[in-house]
Amino acid sequence: MADTTPTGCKVSIALLHYPVYDKNRQVVATALTNLDLHDIARSARTFGLASYYIVTPIPDQRALACRIAKHWQEGWGASYNPKRKAALDLVRIVASLDEAVADLVQCHGKPIKLLVTGAKDQPNSVTYAETRELLATGSEHYLILLGTGWGLTEEVFSRADYLLAPIKGAGDYNHLSVRSAASIILDRLLGERDR
Amino acid sequence: MADTTPTGCKVSIALLHYPVYDKNRQVVATALTNLDLHDIARSARTFGLASYYIVTPIPDQRALACRIAKHWQEGWGASYNPKRKAALDLVRIVASLDEAVADLVQCHGKPIKLLVTGAKDQPNSVTYAETRELLATGSEHYLILLGTGWGLTEEVFSRADYLLAPIKGAGDYNHLSVRSAASIILDRLLGERDR
Repeated sequence: MADTTPTGCKVSIALLHYPVYDKNRQVVATALTNLDLHDIARSARTFGLASYYIVTPIPDQRALACRIAKHWQEGWGASYNPKRKAALDLVRIVASLDEAVADLVQCHGKPIKLLVTGAKDQPNSVTYAETRELLATGSEHYLILLGTGWGLTEEVFSRADYLLAPIKGAGDYNHLSVRSAASIILDRLLGERDR
Repeated sequence: MADTTPTGCKVSIALLHYPVYDKNRQVVATALTNLDLHDIARSARTFGLASYYIVTPIPDQRALACRIAKHWQEGWGASYNPKRKAALDLVRIVASLDEAVADLVQCHGKPIKLLVTGAKDQPNSVTYAETRELLATGSEHYLILLGTGWGLTEEVFSRADYLLAPIKGAGDYNHLSVRSAASIILDRLLGERDR
């Protein structure tokens, strides 16, 4: 029997605050940005994703992320703006990429394939059309990895099952915000095609 | 002779803080959001747009927008992150939609067509494929209007030359951030097609 699961249910997204590069290519843990939680959660909800992982090894930063999410999930925030709650309900806050993968395995009982994103051209990258087809027809769960700061480290890239091609605009300027990149990637992979 | 101007040069975008609805459908002026300046400027620069208008009738809010932009355009900010300067150089801060249109007429010497965006279905809306073709072949300058708060008012919609279809995701959740919506709209209208 054909698998009729909506494609988004097979897809999650993770925003890594570590390990990422800073401006001088040092490996750092970046600070949480409030609107990264909101915007990417809203995009994830729009395109029907299973979950959105906020990844940071810093306990205080995880506590802050929890506090922001809970403000909209409980009490006043939830009743003031239930649509925001629906988005933030997808958020899961973890200490590492391994923890996110372990959580996904436990939730979905399937192998997890890592789709790594970045702003630079990579050899052997997959196109959006290819990846769209992969997500629609594949039987695994797919985790899209986004980096903060100056991007994901080589260590993360070396773990990729798939390297997603960078988003190209009109020229060689490739400095979208991670929030914008996430939105465009989800739209290209999961948005309506008849547009 | 065929017009070889890159399409983005014929397109600008405006973020209206007035007139927009609040949660209770009252017409209000919303407050500036720092990341609206940055993210939409970076998306506009990526897709080669001519300019990005921040529209607010409140003088203090215009002064704040100027101060944020200038931080990255001059002195320390410009040398710390020249890519951010390149994006924010597209920003023009005006008091009203009429002022944005007058400025565009003066800059480009062409009639200005208004493309209005919103999250709700509208009768007679144009698809992304149709609008992409329009921008590529048209001889006018096109201004894409985005609303803050709970969206642009009927008054703004009544001025539209074109109503752009809403972005559809996996279900009926249509609460993208304006930053995400701007990114997806620009990618659909001006991004690479072989993807």
